[in-house]
Amino acid sequence: MHPTGATQIRSTEARPAQAFEAAVTALRAAVGGEHVQVDLDTRLFWSRSTLSEGTVPRAIVRPRSAAEVQAVMRAANRHGLTVHPVSTGRNWGYGDACAVTAGQIILDLKRMDRILEVNAHLAYVTVEPGVTQGQVVEHLESRGIPLWMDATGAGPHTSLIGNTLERGFGHTPHGDRFAHCCGLEVVLPDGRLLRTGFGHYQNAQAAEVYPYGVGPYLDGIFTQSNLGVVTRMTFWLMPKPEVFKAFVFFAEREDDLGPLVEALRPLRQRGTLRTPIHIGNDLRLVSMNQSYPWQAMNGQTPLSPKVRDELRRAHGVWAWTGTGALFGSKAEVAAAMKEVRRALANVRGMKRLVFIDDRRLRLIEKAQALLERFGWGRRTAPMVAKVKTVYELLKGRSPENCVQGGLWRVRRGAKESRIDSPNPLDHGAGFYWISPVLPMATAHVDKVNALAERVLNDHGFDYQVTFTLLNGRALCAVITVSFDKRNAEEARKARACHDALLDALLAAGYPPYRAGNHSMKKLGATSTNFFDVTAQLKAALDPNGVLSPGHYEPSRA
Amino acid sequence: MHPTGATQIRSTEARPAQAFEAAVTALRAAVGGEHVQVDLDTRLFWSRSTLSEGTVPRAIVRPRSAAEVQAVMRAANRHGLTVHPVSTGRNWGYGDACAVTAGQIILDLKRMDRILEVNAHLAYVTVEPGVTQGQVVEHLESRGIPLWMDATGAGPHTSLIGNTLERGFGHTPHGDRFAHCCGLEVVLPDGRLLRTGFGHYQNAQAAEVYPYGVGPYLDGIFTQSNLGVVTRMTFWLMPKPEVFKAFVFFAEREDDLGPLVEALRPLRQRGTLRTPIHIGNDLRLVSMNQSYPWQAMNGQTPLSPKVRDELRRAHGVWAWTGTGALFGSKAEVAAAMKEVRRALANVRGMKRLVFIDDRRLRLIEKAQALLERFGWGRRTAPMVAKVKTVYELLKGRSPENCVQGGLWRVRRGAKESRIDSPNPLDHGAGFYWISPVLPMATAHVDKVNALAERVLNDHGFDYQVTFTLLNGRALCAVITVSFDKRNAEEARKARACHDALLDALLAAGYPPYRAGNHSMKKLGATSTNFFDVTAQLKAALDPNGVLSPGHYEPSRA
Repeated sequence: MHPTGATQIRSTEARPAQAFEAAVTALRAAVGGEHVQVDLDTRLFWSRSTLSEGTVPRAIVRPRSAAEVQAVMRAANRHGLTVHPVSTGRNWGYGDACAVTAGQIILDLKRMDRILEVNAHLAYVTVEPGVTQGQVVEHLESRGIPLWMDATGAGPHTSLIGNTLERGFGHTPHGDRFAHCCGLEVVLPDGRLLRTGFGHYQNAQAAEVYPYGVGPYLDGIFTQSNLGVVTRMTFWLMPKPEVFKAFVFFAEREDDLGPLVEALRPLRQRGTLRTPIHIGNDLRLVSMNQSYPWQAMNGQTPLSPKVRDELRRAHGVWAWTGTGALFGSKAEVAAAMKEVRRALANVRGMKRLVFIDDRRLRLIEKAQALLERFGWGRRTAPMVAKVKTVYELLKGRSPENCVQGGLWRVRRGAKESRIDSPNPLDHGAGFYWISPVLPMATAHVDKVNALAERVLNDHGFDYQVTFTLLNGRALCAVITVSFDKRNAEEARKARACHDALLDALLAAGYPPYRAGNHSMKKLGATSTNFFDVTAQLKAALDPNGVLSPGHYEPSRA
Repeated sequence: MHPTGATQIRSTEARPAQAFEAAVTALRAAVGGEHVQVDLDTRLFWSRSTLSEGTVPRAIVRPRSAAEVQAVMRAANRHGLTVHPVSTGRNWGYGDACAVTAGQIILDLKRMDRILEVNAHLAYVTVEPGVTQGQVVEHLESRGIPLWMDATGAGPHTSLIGNTLERGFGHTPHGDRFAHCCGLEVVLPDGRLLRTGFGHYQNAQAAEVYPYGVGPYLDGIFTQSNLGVVTRMTFWLMPKPEVFKAFVFFAEREDDLGPLVEALRPLRQRGTLRTPIHIGNDLRLVSMNQSYPWQAMNGQTPLSPKVRDELRRAHGVWAWTGTGALFGSKAEVAAAMKEVRRALANVRGMKRLVFIDDRRLRLIEKAQALLERFGWGRRTAPMVAKVKTVYELLKGRSPENCVQGGLWRVRRGAKESRIDSPNPLDHGAGFYWISPVLPMATAHVDKVNALAERVLNDHGFDYQVTFTLLNGRALCAVITVSFDKRNAEEARKARACHDALLDALLAAGYPPYRAGNHSMKKLGATSTNFFDVTAQLKAALDPNGVLSPGHYEPSRA
């Protein structure tokens, strides 16, 4: 199952067994014996990855509190260990729960899963790293607290802190998650405890409501970095709106995307649209409902234009499908709807704009149920399910069934893959996410589309992409390189494709907003001074280099 | 004029004259001989401060480019100089153009005043540190570019970069200035050039549209710090709205403020209100129109309740006056107006809510002109002028006449002080701004109000304050300690009052969002670990400590 495991293990275990024994004893003293695992099975389990290769850790350590994390970091410094923290470890498509290099200790923060405070008036929640998206929703709903949170599409079991520290983005007005959080508690590499914002002040009153504090604003250096282990963080929440309306829109042809985002751009700049708008291409959508048509393609890749066209028709999708939502009073939402309609009215290739609210969704579901009673509705069922999923996501509820998209290339029945675990690692799903940022303008959209599709097809992969309007000026294209983990040749090709695509994007001036374990080394190649400066900060705060070597640290990746 | 100047100069010029000569030669080589000033008159001019004491610099150096700044920083390291950068030097109430300690070289960036790029579609402007608020407005208007910027009330001649690096806030939807900028170019203390965000990447396409880049997000560490000289920055702009409506509202009694901000809080959280709402107390407003009534008070301070009441009536103000604005389509603004009216309808003490647009403002001005033709309108004239000032400010145009508020205690005719320079330093105006942050809730509002008024009155000063709804959860109270610079005893008392108020606020857990030169030392007293960490970052990037020693660096202030 892990052909490369054994080799990796040997090469990273040069350290004398006796010294490591002493280290393990120190770790056991720090977190309790039962929360340190060093057996090979567990370590191999933790090396599972959606990428072409994972890394095998030296041990897994599960602290229960910041104090225990501090003890682990002190032990790491004393015993020359390297430590890689993961919250819930679901960093799929970027590196999962794996450290960049083999032989690090995984600091599994899943046991730190307490919701520490919810303030209904000031609209925030303070959480530990193990707290998941679904857990917060459940907490709020079960107590009838009328606050909504932001969610990503990665499912209810993913960590709020983990995703935000990677600067992930969601689907709601708080979609720029990093811009809606504050008050980090950080265990520094040397074991000291730091609170950012105003949190380090005695008797601090405003630590949860104002991010910057006084003096240098440090929060940013603990995102996409290896400078500290974040053990606590506050997320701002949204008051449940009087009216919520989701909308879905469709554009016909590939090259309609540029005019489409340019039409939406002023609405994002003006604040009419406050959610990141997500626009997926045909194959990104199709992959949510079925796997690669191996049979129709006679086992060949990439998809031929003809079969792609058939898939589009079978699934009733056009080149682009976009989603967003409006929040506010009845009159506010009505006014915003008018602006959205006006903006999209004359966009080339615009096929449809549909607004959906609770009432309308119930109608759609009722109609679907009726069709099914008559034995019809088989073809509309996935579409109805998809609409409901997106609708819930835009309200801050992440779908349970988030795994399907990653199974595009897995060679088995679509049915089989849809019914079991919502963790792509349980399915042998292979995929890289590569996510360049580009200015919100047609020329850039066309350039990135052409470049990415060409590189993917050249390597035998299909172009699956989602463009997100991150703010009023920038788009992020999340490109999926989907492959079958169980096919070693395809995994090798996927890695080569990832490398070629990232190189091409960097050369063209479109670095990613976030990097996976296989991208870290490349981050430094076309950059000047930046990673020298971050290396200096690293040396200042982590002189022994114990924390996540290689994580956003090209020189050690 | 500068009684303390001579003493300071002697104590800070212990360094041998010969070594300093060599340093000056190096500085002249860096920026050109005519842009290095070491004469006493110029140095004393630069030591002017709104605070009780300024600091006398060793020299003033005026680079024209980032390359020249780099050369200056290299010279500083070679010759053991300390260098304090100022953009336009108008950091009034916090330290003006003065370094925290005497004997530093002032790096005057005023000559770097180029607007480097305006992108009308992506709605941003890229500027150098000498570029002022007024300059950008003029640039946009003269070219007919339909973009608006954010403005603070500090006048058109203040630097965009300077204010933003201190994390100042304005009055528009981009009022959280730091949250609406990106792409810093920074000269590091050792002379290297760093570009943040994606700017350090070869051929970078998205440096001006996405703040975070990839890897640690560093921008924050260059705000309120002494880690680099920012020589270039991009500010996002707003598309000119179809409809703009300002609004003004009034609450009757001191203790009405809590319920008022709690009523506005959900509107800020939901995004109905997207501007920071500013709410000033009676004396803050009165001080915009007249100085302290020395005669009515028989030279005594603080103001008696009776005279305060007379002032309120004379100026037609209540306890609190708030301002904000709505931006959008006709229907969007109408919908938001409805929400604002609904929120404020039942607030205790709410006296009036007035919406103002272009048409209404013209009507008001016409009515005033008419009154004046009949010899009336003398009492309404200041109010009309004030409304117009606020109206323009909410559109991003900072008022020329921004100095008046700082002259409250200056012992001369109000008329005299209103007609000349818009720089408070030209008027002998003395004032400290102390600006604690508090959660947006009645208990905190009442506590800070009571605490601040008591400390101010105990020291013989009046309570002038503006509360700003920074976001949906936090308020900033900007408290003014106004005094007459030409009265040494009053200046001494003002400093004591500043110290006592800051101590009390820190003890109560309300640190300021920003610190003045006399506050820096106190920042560390009630904090744990934070300033040790920033000192480590400082040592890493500025081992010789050449850049702005003491600036947000309590241990060296």
